Amino acid sequence: MKKFAIVISGCGVYDGAEIHEALTSMLAVSRKGHRYRMFAPDIPQHHVINHLTGEEMPEKRNVLVESARIARGDIKDLAAFDPSQYDALLFVGGFGAVKNLSDFAFTGENYSVIEPVAKAIRAMHRAGKPIGAMCVSPVLLADAIEGVELTVGVPCDASEAAGKHGAKHRTTTHGEVTVDRKNRVATTPCYMLDATLAQVADGADHIVDELLKLM
Amino acid sequence: MKKFAIVISGCGVYDGAEIHEALTSMLAVSRKGHRYRMFAPDIPQHHVINHLTGEEMPEKRNVLVESARIARGDIKDLAAFDPSQYDALLFVGGFGAVKNLSDFAFTGENYSVIEPVAKAIRAMHRAGKPIGAMCVSPVLLADAIEGVELTVGVPCDASEAAGKHGAKHRTTTHGEVTVDRKNRVATTPCYMLDATLAQVADGADHIVDELLKLM
Repeated sequence: MKKFAIVISGCGVYDGAEIHEALTSMLAVSRKGHRYRMFAPDIPQHHVINHLTGEEMPEKRNVLVESARIARGDIKDLAAFDPSQYDALLFVGGFGAVKNLSDFAFTGENYSVIEPVAKAIRAMHRAGKPIGAMCVSPVLLADAIEGVELTVGVPCDASEAAGKHGAKHRTTTHGEVTVDRKNRVATTPCYMLDATLAQVADGADHIVDELLKLM
Repeated sequence: MKKFAIVISGCGVYDGAEIHEALTSMLAVSRKGHRYRMFAPDIPQHHVINHLTGEEMPEKRNVLVESARIARGDIKDLAAFDPSQYDALLFVGGFGAVKNLSDFAFTGENYSVIEPVAKAIRAMHRAGKPIGAMCVSPVLLADAIEGVELTVGVPCDASEAAGKHGAKHRTTTHGEVTVDRKNRVATTPCYMLDATLAQVADGADHIVDELLKLM
């Protein structure tokens, strides 16, 4: 039985973690007989978006507290992540990855990732353990691992910005996974493409398979 | 291709819809090649719970607005539900079912369901269309359909209260579905039992199968 650390960034696609991607990756790990532990940083959300209207709300929410909704309360502060305890690290997409875990949504190609994210990625990479990233979250890896090969689906602002950070982008379609064997990194586009929930679940299923093969 | 109306009650197990049950039922419908539309009532949440600590937060949130997080914005007010447009109605669990869709969490056996919930259930029942309910949400059906046969897993406060409303309770285990053929009602326990996510997904998968057979 392998242990996955899954990193989320709030609860809801427009200001936090993409809930469908989070759940389908948790389910893929659970269905294959492995275990996961959820992580999120204990920081304020960049902002709160009304998911019905798309408008900003005059509220303050905390990334770890909102992420706990997806985890049914069973979640840890990413700052306490201990790489020796896990066999793989997996990042979920949603705007939280580029608003809370990094500033890509606001600064574009000059983005950088927050410190606990950089630390977790670099520690797993140094330990030769596999790292996965879904949807837009591969941009996080581009800032932390030099010359990483990744996909965010089709060429776009995110692939260009990752390229400026030295990443090599591969075009992929629904459910497809790009594997960088040298860096032990697996990435898949999910909702970066106009996908159905079943297609997102295929991507989650396949990325978990590739991470298991990279162990 | 069949159309499912899935009713949720916020976003998070302790004050809204159980996210895992919502997603696994959406995924079951999507993977079987059918379509779903999400619904929630446009009402204030009873309260807001910090899912990390379990404590109440001094905030106000709206059930429809928070439910939109699970639905990626693609959700309708339950008051606008048109039974002629759907082949099945499915309720997801979580405390939202007994705090927002009904008052069972506060009044116990004297509970009643809110008007748009009662109206949707009765309209589908009258039309001879199947209705499903997961986790604790079968208590909603007990208040709206006389003498319904259902499960909430093992005997508990919820099964007793449903009994006081005339329901017949059946004990079930993980992934098992109780089918009331006369009333075209299917129910399954999910997180009313101490379940894994994979077991919850089995329950979602099986209840969607039973609803398809009842059409």
